[in-house]
Amino acid sequence: MCRWLAYSGTPLLLDTILYKPAHSLIDQSLHSRLGVETTNGDGFGVGWYAQEKIDTPALLRDVGPAWNNRNLREIADHVRSPLFFAHIRASTGTAVQQSNCHPFRHGRWMWMHNGGITAFHLTRRELALRVDPALYSDIEGTTDSETMFYLAITLGLEQDPPGAVARMVGVVERIGRDHGVEFPLQMTIAVTDGERLWTFRYSTQGASRSLFFSTRVDTLRQLHPDIAFLREVSDDTRLIVSEPLADLPGAWNEIPESSYGVVQAGSDELYPFTPQPA
Amino acid sequence: MCRWLAYSGTPLLLDTILYKPAHSLIDQSLHSRLGVETTNGDGFGVGWYAQEKIDTPALLRDVGPAWNNRNLREIADHVRSPLFFAHIRASTGTAVQQSNCHPFRHGRWMWMHNGGITAFHLTRRELALRVDPALYSDIEGTTDSETMFYLAITLGLEQDPPGAVARMVGVVERIGRDHGVEFPLQMTIAVTDGERLWTFRYSTQGASRSLFFSTRVDTLRQLHPDIAFLREVSDDTRLIVSEPLADLPGAWNEIPESSYGVVQAGSDELYPFTPQPA
Amino acid sequence: MCRWLAYSGTPLLLDTILYKPAHSLIDQSLHSRLGVETTNGDGFGVGWYAQEKIDTPALLRDVGPAWNNRNLREIADHVRSPLFFAHIRASTGTAVQQSNCHPFRHGRWMWMHNGGITAFHLTRRELALRVDPALYSDIEGTTDSETMFYLAITLGLEQDPPGAVARMVGVVERIGRDHGVEFPLQMTIAVTDGERLWTFRYSTQGASRSLFFSTRVDTLRQLHPDIAFLREVSDDTRLIVSEPLADLPGAWNEIPESSYGVVQAGSDELYPFTPQPA
Amino acid sequence: MCRWLAYSGTPLLLDTILYKPAHSLIDQSLHSRLGVETTNGDGFGVGWYAQEKIDTPALLRDVGPAWNNRNLREIADHVRSPLFFAHIRASTGTAVQQSNCHPFRHGRWMWMHNGGITAFHLTRRELALRVDPALYSDIEGTTDSETMFYLAITLGLEQDPPGAVARMVGVVERIGRDHGVEFPLQMTIAVTDGERLWTFRYSTQGASRSLFFSTRVDTLRQLHPDIAFLREVSDDTRLIVSEPLADLPGAWNEIPESSYGVVQAGSDELYPFTPQPA
Repeated sequence: MCRWLAYSGTPLLLDTILYKPAHSLIDQSLHSRLGVETTNGDGFGVGWYAQEKIDTPALLRDVGPAWNNRNLREIADHVRSPLFFAHIRASTGTAVQQSNCHPFRHGRWMWMHNGGITAFHLTRRELALRVDPALYSDIEGTTDSETMFYLAITLGLEQDPPGAVARMVGVVERIGRDHGVEFPLQMTIAVTDGERLWTFRYSTQGASRSLFFSTRVDTLRQLHPDIAFLREVSDDTRLIVSEPLADLPGAWNEIPESSYGVVQAGSDELYPFTPQPA
Repeated sequence: MCRWLAYSGTPLLLDTILYKPAHSLIDQSLHSRLGVETTNGDGFGVGWYAQEKIDTPALLRDVGPAWNNRNLREIADHVRSPLFFAHIRASTGTAVQQSNCHPFRHGRWMWMHNGGITAFHLTRRELALRVDPALYSDIEGTTDSETMFYLAITLGLEQDPPGAVARMVGVVERIGRDHGVEFPLQMTIAVTDGERLWTFRYSTQGASRSLFFSTRVDTLRQLHPDIAFLREVSDDTRLIVSEPLADLPGAWNEIPESSYGVVQAGSDELYPFTPQPA
Repeated sequence: MCRWLAYSGTPLLLDTILYKPAHSLIDQSLHSRLGVETTNGDGFGVGWYAQEKIDTPALLRDVGPAWNNRNLREIADHVRSPLFFAHIRASTGTAVQQSNCHPFRHGRWMWMHNGGITAFHLTRRELALRVDPALYSDIEGTTDSETMFYLAITLGLEQDPPGAVARMVGVVERIGRDHGVEFPLQMTIAVTDGERLWTFRYSTQGASRSLFFSTRVDTLRQLHPDIAFLREVSDDTRLIVSEPLADLPGAWNEIPESSYGVVQAGSDELYPFTPQPA
Repeated sequence: MCRWLAYSGTPLLLDTILYKPAHSLIDQSLHSRLGVETTNGDGFGVGWYAQEKIDTPALLRDVGPAWNNRNLREIADHVRSPLFFAHIRASTGTAVQQSNCHPFRHGRWMWMHNGGITAFHLTRRELALRVDPALYSDIEGTTDSETMFYLAITLGLEQDPPGAVARMVGVVERIGRDHGVEFPLQMTIAVTDGERLWTFRYSTQGASRSLFFSTRVDTLRQLHPDIAFLREVSDDTRLIVSEPLADLPGAWNEIPESSYGVVQAGSDELYPFTPQPA
């Protein structure tokens, strides 16, 4: 499995979030506490929207571990962004190659995932067939995560992200069960169009991988008036993370089982998530 | 496109064939004379059968250029084999990743290819659907070459290589034409099970990439009694190459358009090749 | 040897200079016209100063060819900079590794080089001994280019770039000659502190690698009033390149043998370059 | 720090030792029990002597983790050797590049190391100066380990390995102390010329990294008559490892502090090791 984080808020040097915290994502690449594996060294990726208007987010992805990658360190030290994703991978068998590294991108959209489709080798073909034929050749890698992304796009992600993901999950569960798989899906997902950010926590079994969101900054600031960082970022700055980046009391809230959240201008929201049976 | 060579005969250090000749495959990676591109630097691969009995051939593949790869140099200097393939890649757009590097392997079989399926992005999905569903998840990369291999396996490669390749070409041409492609296929192929080696030269247009086979060593030895190398290898040692490795008069023979050859114990053979319409 | 370019002027997406021109540096990585090698595929690097104030330039360097590198493509499409270097490498034997890729960085300074110290394996040790002992451990790679950079820093680069380079050349030539080398040095160099940019063309033999600077934009604009690009950049935007990026009449001027130039606010300047004998 | 193993004995597929054991070196790359770091993912190397006579050992080294490297898996599955080294690296700061991966080679000799020279950045220059000037340019990387190897060669490794290593340690300790370092050296080393294998365990502080040798096979076979593997290898087959590969009672013996061992035809030997003060 993997670890990831999504940031939305005051434009920051990526370093501030990726490297600086005590239990940063880089630290998690070596010593994950809540992940299925302690080591997440099978490639990484970071995707960010520039501060100026550019049609697509930028991606830096590579096949080595994040912890020793110098290009990642350089980008983190020199690029500022209001909205970025970062992901470290622990392969469950599929090839360690750039096209299997998250985040995945389609136009302005980015997608990343932790979890997996159980027995994906059995259902990969059938799932790929459900992808819009016009998009099939855009699939560059061999991960379940990328197939889930293209399925979601096929099922309306760009119009209705929560609905499309609910339909995608329905398809994955149906095809999995058709192949005798009891619990076809495990997922925590982040997806964004550069404006809003949706995050999902779900598994067929109801025992999903960990997922947390940060407390609103204005609340946190009252709890921890001495923390300089909190005075530098806006009230609505938000982090979604596979596991907390630091042990700050009051800072992290678990996203409940079978839920999804929306991070957006105005107030963020949290809803129950129910797959739409296929 | 790409360049490749296949060797069968007296066990040799790979270096003898890969690096030593004046216009070796390594030289071709920088300065191809007959290829579509002069540079073939988008990954490489070598596959060899060990001298002792091991079930599968070994593969060394990497994403950088062959000319500066130290691990390739090491293997060439230290491994001896009676039957090996080597391939240098010039990507026509698909990702430069290990899983897109030739040769491809399935059990004891190896396959490599130069050429391409025209407008593969249009037909990739439909071709993948023709692959035996039980094999679909074994496809690790995104090249037309690998899809052709799995189609050929689906169509009986392990029982009847020339027939399976003829059927595979028929399918590729039919699906290409269904998508309005006039000349769907370009190919020079080598395939082996570790005992025999088949090679094909064909293109829909009848203007195939170059392909040569070496003259029988006993004949060559009479022409060039002074060349030490020829005294060290058996009469039936044979090379199949995208382009000649050296300017040795009498050494290289073009494989005719629409032909295939078989390299085997006893006498090698050359036949016309006709696709089997699908 | 290698190819490089240095850009200073109106902040641009790197893509505009790196990929868009007909004979861009990316094209030169495959098909250099004026270089010693046609292929420059042994690693690459790009170094840029951010538009906002950050202490150091950012580096993206990797060991594969520039032409197929996706992270370079991403940076080029998403990063805008007023001052950047780009370099493509053709190794003359030293290892293809990130620490041997240009540009090299020291604090705010960046350095890149085309050419070489003749018989560097003979003089590497002695040259390294001339580097300030406090800097010795900062040398991470094994190239002559990096040693030249650290020698120049040792000899006052940060106070007086032309003087330090003249002294560095003197040392290299002296030590080379002590080892019986007739023509110890070949170089075209670009070096910057993020404000000004110095470029040098020199070789002991007086037969230096090619180097060009672009004509002032206001002049070019009058020659080519129809070229949109020229209306988008400031009068003092300047390019220094190993070979012209496009066949635009009047656009490129050869930097004379044994010369150096300064690109800076106000008027740029061109001077003769003479090594200072050591 | 790092983990390593050295094998000498009946020619085996590398896989038998590298992957098959329960706590194999590959497993240690993810979950080291006795190492300073649990993760050893900053490159790896394997060096082996071929079964036939070839002047040098072969090296396969790469910068990613061993656990997901396919070329290593291929070599392990297809190459048989009577004497091989394998090493997994956890960088303590120096660059992750092929030239910093162990084993290092000089002619027929191979060398690998776990441990470190304390404050090597302070002493690197002075230590490099002690290397035979004729060898200086052969140093390709930036590790303390490689410098130790070249120092040992300079000090007579090819004539008298234990003496040369004792002198090398003396030099490292002297120069370290000259720079105010209390405990200049930590080391477990394996070195071989393809015939004999020497291994050293030493640290200035007398608190060296773990090192074990396997019990003689004839003894082990009596203890474990049911283990098939032990019937397939010769009595004098020997493993030296940073940490035991499996929990087999009676199989592993700690090499004492400040000791060195010789693995050779006839009987192996274990001696005290004392640095020779410089």
